Amino acid sequence: MSPKITTELLKQLRQVMKSPRYVQEPVQAYIVPSGDAHQSEYIAPCDCRRAFISGFDGSAGTAIVTEQHAAMWTDGRYFLQAANQMDNNWMLMKMGLKDTPTQEDWLVSVLPEGSKVGVDPFIIPADQWKRMSKVLRSAGHNLVPVKENLIDAIWTDCPQRPCKPLITLDLSYTGVSWRDKIVALRTKMAERKVFWFVVTALDEVAWLFNLRGSDVEYNPVFFAYAVIGMNTIRLFIDGDRMMDPAVRDHLQLDTTLEPEFKIQVMPYGSILTELQAVSAGLSPKEKVWLSDKASYALTEAIPKAYRYLTPYTPICIAKAVKNASETEGMRRAHIKDAVALCELFNWLEKEVPKGSVTEIIAADKAEEFRSQQKDFVELSFATISSTGPNGAIIHYKPVPETNRTLSVNEIYLLDSGAQYKDGTTDVTRTMHFGTPSAYEKECFTYVLKGHIAVSAAIFPNGTKGHLLDSFARSALWDCGLDYLHGTGHGVGSFLNVHEGPCGISYKTFADEPLEAGMIVSDEPGYYEDGSFGVRIENVVLVIPAETKYNFKNRGSLTFEPLTLVPIQTKMIDVSLLTQKECNWVNDYHQKCREVIGAELERQGRHEALRWLIRETEPLIRAQ
Amino acid sequence: MSPKITTELLKQLRQVMKSPRYVQEPVQAYIVPSGDAHQSEYIAPCDCRRAFISGFDGSAGTAIVTEQHAAMWTDGRYFLQAANQMDNNWMLMKMGLKDTPTQEDWLVSVLPEGSKVGVDPFIIPADQWKRMSKVLRSAGHNLVPVKENLIDAIWTDCPQRPCKPLITLDLSYTGVSWRDKIVALRTKMAERKVFWFVVTALDEVAWLFNLRGSDVEYNPVFFAYAVIGMNTIRLFIDGDRMMDPAVRDHLQLDTTLEPEFKIQVMPYGSILTELQAVSAGLSPKEKVWLSDKASYALTEAIPKAYRYLTPYTPICIAKAVKNASETEGMRRAHIKDAVALCELFNWLEKEVPKGSVTEIIAADKAEEFRSQQKDFVELSFATISSTGPNGAIIHYKPVPETNRTLSVNEIYLLDSGAQYKDGTTDVTRTMHFGTPSAYEKECFTYVLKGHIAVSAAIFPNGTKGHLLDSFARSALWDCGLDYLHGTGHGVGSFLNVHEGPCGISYKTFADEPLEAGMIVSDEPGYYEDGSFGVRIENVVLVIPAETKYNFKNRGSLTFEPLTLVPIQTKMIDVSLLTQKECNWVNDYHQKCREVIGAELERQGRHEALRWLIRETEPLIRAQ
Repeated sequence: MSPKITTELLKQLRQVMKSPRYVQEPVQAYIVPSGDAHQSEYIAPCDCRRAFISGFDGSAGTAIVTEQHAAMWTDGRYFLQAANQMDNNWMLMKMGLKDTPTQEDWLVSVLPEGSKVGVDPFIIPADQWKRMSKVLRSAGHNLVPVKENLIDAIWTDCPQRPCKPLITLDLSYTGVSWRDKIVALRTKMAERKVFWFVVTALDEVAWLFNLRGSDVEYNPVFFAYAVIGMNTIRLFIDGDRMMDPAVRDHLQLDTTLEPEFKIQVMPYGSILTELQAVSAGLSPKEKVWLSDKASYALTEAIPKAYRYLTPYTPICIAKAVKNASETEGMRRAHIKDAVALCELFNWLEKEVPKGSVTEIIAADKAEEFRSQQKDFVELSFATISSTGPNGAIIHYKPVPETNRTLSVNEIYLLDSGAQYKDGTTDVTRTMHFGTPSAYEKECFTYVLKGHIAVSAAIFPNGTKGHLLDSFARSALWDCGLDYLHGTGHGVGSFLNVHEGPCGISYKTFADEPLEAGMIVSDEPGYYEDGSFGVRIENVVLVIPAETKYNFKNRGSLTFEPLTLVPIQTKMIDVSLLTQKECNWVNDYHQKCREVIGAELERQGRHEALRWLIRETEPLIRAQ
Repeated sequence: MSPKITTELLKQLRQVMKSPRYVQEPVQAYIVPSGDAHQSEYIAPCDCRRAFISGFDGSAGTAIVTEQHAAMWTDGRYFLQAANQMDNNWMLMKMGLKDTPTQEDWLVSVLPEGSKVGVDPFIIPADQWKRMSKVLRSAGHNLVPVKENLIDAIWTDCPQRPCKPLITLDLSYTGVSWRDKIVALRTKMAERKVFWFVVTALDEVAWLFNLRGSDVEYNPVFFAYAVIGMNTIRLFIDGDRMMDPAVRDHLQLDTTLEPEFKIQVMPYGSILTELQAVSAGLSPKEKVWLSDKASYALTEAIPKAYRYLTPYTPICIAKAVKNASETEGMRRAHIKDAVALCELFNWLEKEVPKGSVTEIIAADKAEEFRSQQKDFVELSFATISSTGPNGAIIHYKPVPETNRTLSVNEIYLLDSGAQYKDGTTDVTRTMHFGTPSAYEKECFTYVLKGHIAVSAAIFPNGTKGHLLDSFARSALWDCGLDYLHGTGHGVGSFLNVHEGPCGISYKTFADEPLEAGMIVSDEPGYYEDGSFGVRIENVVLVIPAETKYNFKNRGSLTFEPLTLVPIQTKMIDVSLLTQKECNWVNDYHQKCREVIGAELERQGRHEALRWLIRETEPLIRAQ
């Protein structure tokens, strides 16, 4: 990788930072955050402004350009990549290291007195604006919103904002109609005495209207906002997508409806002026609800006294609890996904010894098998296909420069998933196609013990996911080992593979309590730098647990694995398992045989079926 | 218990709320918090203002009196007690229930427009002031500091502020001289570029100067503040305590010293004016450090731009990590404490069947045995001596009205501890003097499994205590059981039995990472309302752990029990223990035998020794 030469671009940016055509008054610094106007984790090419200006295209990073300097803040995952991708116009600010200043502190240290710091108010979340603005103000500077995005001003060949056709999901997939979702949302609004709700996250718009899109790779969402009143529904969306008869029919745009269910379709770009109009008409006590992570631009459009901000919206919370149709869809998707992986692993077992399978070929083959399955839409994230030392790079994605050939001498880690019309998958298996060393088996078995400890955990209703994180680490900790990432994230139902508001992590963020119907991943790991990586990941469904007693009538919960792909028994040191753990593995494999075996049979995939049977032979533990 | 009649008192309070003698302008509401000017958990009688005005003397509660209403906020532990102790002038505001308004919201709902709400600025912590003031201001009211405490104004027979003699601790107890502690503090101040440090917590003053007092029951502290500059030391303390030659000598008050170690002794009441004088002399960038829980009065004395507030002070953090002398002292204290408890349990075993031992008698007997030990000072908290259903009341303290007789038919729970000059103890044992039921044994064994899971846990350096909390609950959760309190708290070294900044709790407060030398309690429990309570509590020391591997060279930690009192094997259902757990119990009992046995022998307590030997017979687990 050679760095992007940014001298000319930075010169142009510094010009527009002073140009009255773009800014009311010159700005002495300009901030380029990672996100889009919806605070999405995955963004469209047209929103990759930070990558455009700097060359650094990792998933997290913030660029700040002043008249003299250009600096990039990113975290430990990307120190090396950022250093390789950026030329020496850029200073790398390594977040998490002791001596690295915060963006605000750095700005204060380099800016001339009374400076103006510009930022696109649509890109910066309101909570971040508040924090930054406070520090700058107390040092005599000002954070100012710059309406026109200054990167867009110099990005002559900026790709168009995608505007792909929509997919409508009927009740068999969603379980609840968009009308009923609106009714439920209005009930929540009434409970909180809120009159308006602004939907800003793309997956929340998609979920609310039972629509899907493909504007962003891996995430089946589309660019839109919605503003829900007690008697009105406004959907802000561009293009001719609303001309599609299926969409018009789905949204009942041409039907005579009660006025409170009549959807007014408006241009995507009119959200701000419409929100300002709504705000202008508010009577006292008519509050407007939005996420505290919504953009500064939209938040500011609502006078402070009328704002009702929460970390999680009622849509985010409702979306996390899957109904019976969604759960059944997720089950179906995971069965198909397991079929594809059985095919893949059977194929790898034969091909790897020949020395012709690279990480990229394996990833492509995984996609090929998945694409043969019904209702396959696309992958749910970039496949992590890594062997040997590449497996220790947690967010690895094979590229030609790093592409390694799979062999019988190295561990292979595959973290992959897909979007099917009935559900989203995300599964990691770690395999050895030769003979693993005792140490590799030992590490794998500790990770497996952690995986089982979470999967089999029983815990009271209302427990937050972060309280389960240590269960996943206990076996590793006992031997002085650990892994430096969380244990699980929420998973959407044919939606984003990472979604809030629940998760399993040592980081104590404001996670919502787990409840039956939520779906999370369970993915402990162990990574030995320069050597190998192990991760075992299932997607699991929160279900009620039967317990002997029932303290304070609270009820208990546990997990049911939706992922049904064999865990390579060759990698397990059975002597390190308890009988209970051994039984868990055998029960799990028995279920894989029954459920996936039947589907392989149905699809006539007999060789993969034989592989499945072989891989699910019960473990036997010496007493 | 009959309620306190408060009609006349409330009338008087409402008068002074309007009297120009006490308030600049009339206040329409007056807040009476629980605490003292040092935000202490345990308070002196003269600070029990909320109990005086309302009759309710639980450890937590806030009273607010308006012209029309008198309301008391307290939590679930005290709903019953508060209802019994208060007359019907008072409304009980049950915190934690859905419909209970916050103090601010309630004030907003009852106050006439533009009201003034008064509070003693020395009693209210700055962070609480800020929160409350903001809500009141946004509703058009004002929170105002009332210099003279209005309860004191009407409390004609208010007890005097205690001013008891001081105890000096030499190096053999403290390991570090106060001079060296000042040097270390100034180093921390220099690191943070802070010029002044204000010591407001009583245990922090005591620790810093290696002094102890007895102004507050159970906590060996004394009323004082300190202000440490880079070249000055000011100690604010009253009475003739500074006349004591031992204290003068200890603090080197009459020695010619380098000026930076010369202690200026000032009246306790002059802290505010002195702090204002310090503040007036500050040059730009000369910051003053204090806890964000310090009183509003002291915080306000420092102009905002000069304040440096942190949740935990450097003294709090240094105090938590015990040095070798303190650790050895704690070990000695726990050995003596175990001797006293062996004597007690041996005595109870003989006396309980006679039917003459009440909860109060047992508690008194425990104190008697403890007081026979060397360097005994006082108890470290009010003894929880509870049998049968009283055991299920987590914060129970026997009083004549509730005093129950111990019997061979009920479980007995004793949670008690003492202050010795070399250390502080806190231990809970749950015993049966007859034959426990299978269910009682089952519950006890789950609690024991949780206790062991924490005590034997191995975890990376830098782990926060809250990540260990679920280990204590896992066995209970498996059966649908749980307990509604945290698992552990920091313990002082001949200081407060509850201290920050570490602990083990599902509540994710800002606990500091555990490190070797910290001391916490490990006390899971199970409580069956109306029936019985089980709790097993040891005080444990954080020590380095030897592990097979050492990921990222982080090192690992584990716990060593300092408490060495037999855990009643009669209560254990051995079939529910793993072999590892069984070995833990046997190893623990072996250590009790060796260490406590030797001390019982040395003290010639042969009957108690025989009891110890009997109670520490190894468990045998069927294979």
